[in-house]
Order: sequence, then C-alpha cells, then structure tokens
Amino acid sequence: MNIALLPGDGIGPEVIAQAVKVVQAIGKKFGHTITFKEAITGAAAIDAVGHPYPEETHQVCLQADAVLFGAIGDPRFDNDPSAKVRPEQGLLEMRKRLGLFSNVRPTFTFPSLVHKSPLKRDRIEGTDLVFLRELTGGIYFGEPRGRNEQGTKAFDTCVYSVEEIERLARMGFEFAQKRRKHLTCVDKANVLATSRLWRETVQRLAPEYPDVTVEYEFVDAVAMRLIQWPKAYDVLITENLFGDILTDEASVISGSMGLMPSASLGVNTKLFEPIHGSYPQAAGKDIANPLATVLSAAMMFEYAFELMDEAKAISDAVNLSLEKGIVTEDLAEGEVAYKTSEVGDWLA
Amino acid sequence: MNIALLPGDGIGPEVIAQAVKVVQAIGKKFGHTITFKEAITGAAAIDAVGHPYPEETHQVCLQADAVLFGAIGDPRFDNDPSAKVRPEQGLLEMRKRLGLFSNVRPTFTFPSLVHKSPLKRDRIEGTDLVFLRELTGGIYFGEPRGRNEQGTKAFDTCVYSVEEIERLARMGFEFAQKRRKHLTCVDKANVLATSRLWRETVQRLAPEYPDVTVEYEFVDAVAMRLIQWPKAYDVLITENLFGDILTDEASVISGSMGLMPSASLGVNTKLFEPIHGSYPQAAGKDIANPLATVLSAAMMFEYAFELMDEAKAISDAVNLSLEKGIVTEDLAEGEVAYKTSEVGDWLA
Ligand SMILES: CC(C)[C@H](C(=O)O)[C@@H](O)C(=O)O
Ligand SMILES: CC(C)[C@H](C(=O)O)[C@@H](O)C(=O)O
Repeated sequence: MNIALLPGDGIGPEVIAQAVKVVQAIGKKFGHTITFKEAITGAAAIDAVGHPYPEETHQVCLQADAVLFGAIGDPRFDNDPSAKVRPEQGLLEMRKRLGLFSNVRPTFTFPSLVHKSPLKRDRIEGTDLVFLRELTGGIYFGEPRGRNEQGTKAFDTCVYSVEEIERLARMGFEFAQKRRKHLTCVDKANVLATSRLWRETVQRLAPEYPDVTVEYEFVDAVAMRLIQWPKAYDVLITENLFGDILTDEASVISGSMGLMPSASLGVNTKLFEPIHGSYPQAAGKDIANPLATVLSAAMMFEYAFELMDEAKAISDAVNLSLEKGIVTEDLAEGEVAYKTSEVGDWLA
Repeated sequence: MNIALLPGDGIGPEVIAQAVKVVQAIGKKFGHTITFKEAITGAAAIDAVGHPYPEETHQVCLQADAVLFGAIGDPRFDNDPSAKVRPEQGLLEMRKRLGLFSNVRPTFTFPSLVHKSPLKRDRIEGTDLVFLRELTGGIYFGEPRGRNEQGTKAFDTCVYSVEEIERLARMGFEFAQKRRKHLTCVDKANVLATSRLWRETVQRLAPEYPDVTVEYEFVDAVAMRLIQWPKAYDVLITENLFGDILTDEASVISGSMGLMPSASLGVNTKLFEPIHGSYPQAAGKDIANPLATVLSAAMMFEYAFELMDEAKAISDAVNLSLEKGIVTEDLAEGEVAYKTSEVGDWLA
C-alpha cells in the first residue's frame, strides 16, 4: 500500500503524524507492507515553491493508492482579500485535478461523549447519518468569478451539469441501499436554477432505486431539522457549498469537530481528511485532537482497501481511548489532558 | 397608521388574522387609528391573477406605512422544477421592488421555553443575537441564471456591489453600537470573490466605528459555533443565502420556528414577517403557532412607528401566554393545546 501524506498547514502535520503511527501499527498487526510518501500543500507549499498545490505533489497523489490529508489554511491570507495566491486554491485544485467529486462525511455519536454535545441526549443518541457533499463543482469552481474593472462589483458563478449531479446522486442512492434506504436531497429549488436541476435529476433517477425513499428538503429547513431531530436522516446529498455549511454544523452532534473524519471519492484516487481545518491557534503546541485524522485513516482502510477488520481495529482503539479518557484538552473534562503525540502513541 | 396586509399562502392567512386582532387591541388601548388594506401574493395570487406579486399589491405596499406579511410557498410548485411561475418569485420581486435590503432577525430565548430547545440550558439561556441578512442581492437575484440550450447545465450568479454591501454593513455597525458593540461579518472569503468584497468593505468601514469590535468568520464555522456557543454573538451581518440558512438554524435556539419574527428594512417601506414558511401541512386547521407573526407586529411598532410601549405591550402579552400555557399544539406539552384563533383572542 502506497500512501501519499499531505500534512498541509497549521495542526495538519501534528495530526497526520499520529495517523501515521496508527497506520504503521495496523500494518504490523495485520501483516501489510505500507510505504508513505510525503508532499507539500497549502501555505507551506506557497512558502516553499510559490504554489499551494505543486505539480510534484499532484504526481505523488496520482501514484499513491490513497492520500492522507491534514488541513490547509493560514490566517496570514484570510484577512488579506487582495492576496493573489491563497492556500485554499491548492485544496480546490487538488480536489478538482484528482477528480474527488464526492466527499463522504459521516456523523455519529460516541457513547462516552454524548454528554459533551451542546444538544440534549435524547435528541442525538444513536444518530447515524452520512453526507455526500459534491466537491468539485458549484460556486467553488464556476466561471466567471472575480471583479468588474473598477472593482466596484464582485461575482461568483454556481454551475452544475447533469452528469456532475447524476454521479453524486447515484452514489447517494447506493449508499442508501446499503444503509436505512432513506435519501434526502438538499437543495434550494424554490430559488436556484442549479437546485432545480439537482431536484429534476434526482427525481429522474429515483425509479431505478425503488427500495430507496427519497425526500427533497430545502437547505434552510435542513439546517434547522439537523439540530432538532438528526435521527430523521440517513443519507443526505448536497451540492458543494451547502455541504460545506451543513457538515460543519452537523459536527456539533458528536460534540466536537475534532472527531469527524471524511473520505473523498472519485475518479483518480481516494483521499482521507479530518473535517476540521488547520486550527492555526493550536499549531505546534502538541494539543490538537488527532482523532478525526485517525478515524480518516480508518475510513481509508474501509474505502480504499476494503479492509474492514483493519478499519474496525482503529475505530475500536479510538472508542477505547475515549472511554479511558486518553484524550486531548478539548475533550478532557477537568481531568488531565494528554498531548496530541501521547494520544497517537497510545492508539498505536 | 395604514398597514398593508399580505397573508399569502398556507398558514399565512390564519397567523395574519391573529396579528390583526392584536394590532387592533393595541390601537384601542393606546388610542391609535389603524386601518388595514389586504392584498394578494404568492400561490394565492397566481391562482387569482396569474402573477405572484401583482402590480396592485405593490401599490398597496407603497402606500402603506408598514406591511404585515404572512408566508409564501406551495408544495404544488416545489416538486415541479419546470413550473414557469412560482410563488417565491413573488416574494423575491416584492423584496426587490420595495427595496427591503436588510432583513433583521433577532434570536433570543423565552424563559418559559428554554427547556424546549434541543440545546442544553446552559448553552442558550440569555442568548441575544441579531442577524442582519442582506435581502435583495446575491445569488437570489444575480444574472445570468437558468440553463444552457440543451438543458444539460444550470447556473446561478452571485453578485454584490460595494454599495449593497456598504449599506447593510453600516446598518450592522449601527445596530452593534446600540447593543453590545460586537459585529461578526459572516463570509466565505477563502473561496468566494463576493465574500472577499464583503470582507474588504467591512474592513474599510470599521475605523469609522471604533467602539465596535469586528470579527470575520467563515460561514461554515458560524454554522457550528452558533449551536456550540450562541452567546458569543451579538450582531451578525451576512449575504442573502448564508443569512437564509443561518437564521433558520438559529431558530432552534428558541426552541421553535413558530416564535421568530423579522423586520425587513430598506428604501420604500418596512415589512414585518415571521421567519417560518407557509407550512402547508397545517393550513386551514387552526393549529399554526401565531406568535412569530404577533411578534413581527411588535417589531412593526418598534421599527416602523418607534412606539416602544406598544411593542412592549405585545411582547409582554406573548410572554404571559407562554407562561400560562395558552399555546398551540407545537408548544403544548401533553397539556391541552389551544387553537391558533384562541391564542390570538387571548393575546388581544
Ligand atoms: C478550507 C475550505 C476551502 C474548505 C471548503 O470550504 O471546502 C473547508 O471548509 C472544508 O470543508 O474542507
Ligand atoms: C421562501 C424562500 C424563497 C425564502 C428565502 O429563501 O428567502 C424563505 O426561506 C425566507 O427565509 O424568507
């Protein structure tokens, strides 16, 4: 197994390092030969070579069986709206060039952490939903985008083709068939032309999946019901921007963004990354929660290698660490907090 | 006081009827002469005259001192992506032609309802935040929008001019000055050109309001923190679509969408409406919660007529109805539920 490592910015390198320890331990236990190849992205790559997703990094990803990705983003660029090159461009270029059109973001609760959620226990216990967020289209990529000549107007374009919607929707139907057979199409079809094409396309495909119940819900209503009654959902499909907003929102259900993994599936490779960002305030302090990245490695064994025992060994270890309180400061309650590296060592 | 009444669709007529009773009671108590003029909008107007915002309705709004609006929307149109005329077009046209560029959506808790929220008491008790949602720009209105000739691609355009951003942002700064002096600019400046213009514009204005602390936060982060720690926020300014999603999400804090009023301020008039939709499943059953509309009438006295005692009399009555359990079935807990019309009578 050849794994590309893209630590990226902020806490990325620290959390990736823990995932590597865990993956190595799995290799040893299950007898797999695993090699890693590291490459640069994001602000780190801008600093080194002036580009947030260098060609060399792209080649490393293409040649790997799977990519483990940390995070991208640096506040140096956020408050400088005129910056020409920004770290996030690298993330978007990577997603696009690797054809990672479907970002799979499961949301679930951990028995030992339910009490940490801002939500009441009875609302969330047993939540088991998964978002399929379209990741290479929509307003993130549509042209034209930019400013008028005088700089007095800015514009972005949201574009979707039937094929882009269809491949994501089909994956959604297939996920639903393997789960509780319920699919929610999230859109804003009462306002947006792109949303109407989403709805129309999903409606056209639905008869091919007669065992799946499909619901169509406006994004604003989902933003509310997701908190009121998350157990109502099974599989949700969304366009890129709605998925960005709703999956971050959904992370409150599990009590922490530091826990939520994701898998990006598509054409040229498979990529695994925590949904939390680069969290620059914590960078270099050995305090960031590595569990989302470690669980992303579990998803890698499941989705890239179809090795379910290996995936389960990792998630069991994570559950045990939570039960035993071997956790970083964001999860430690008045008790002693472990360092990022200590949690990684323990899990490995 | 000349008030235009636009009941609209679904539960709109029923909840507007209760607000009218309350406004009349206020007129009597405080000695104001109040006249109402009703006009059609939405699916009701499509059915009657083929257009969801007829010219005659527009004239009624322009001539009024304030507009009380119910809701627009009908499921007959939602699942027919090819419908040429849709009720929501009327809502958007109304907002645009009346110049209602700022939708003020307060979020707060009711002492007697805190236990109803899906969120834990300590997270939400004392929440007092207000969204200023830009309402006449962005992807709701930008051109071009539609499909390519073959129908295989759809597109929407998000556009913002400096002036549009500036007038909303200035209102945000002014709101903050009258409140806790904290302003959050919600954007997605790491991806969108329009968001970068928002951020740049707010940054340019900030020195004119030195007493206001400004924070810039990405929409995905706000979607999360709004649930984790809503008390962190005071005034939030957002573009149109982000505001749509976040304000519905924020309604869970108070425990029910049936409670959240809004005021739309701008150029040609002031409009007041509940943030809940037309809720067609409940239409005609006399079960819908009228409080959001009644509280919108309270906002009308405050924002359109600057009559604070009148506004307070209404919100006091609402608080009392909640304490005494004179509430519709969505809020009645195992106890007897009152009808929409009974709650209206009691409040009046
Ligand atoms: C960093 C940013 C561009 C990115 C996104 O919006 O896709 C992030 O929020 C995510 O969800 O992966
Ligand atoms: C009905 C719909 C077009 C509308 C909107 O998106 O603005 C509604 O959700 C609202 O928030 O007032």
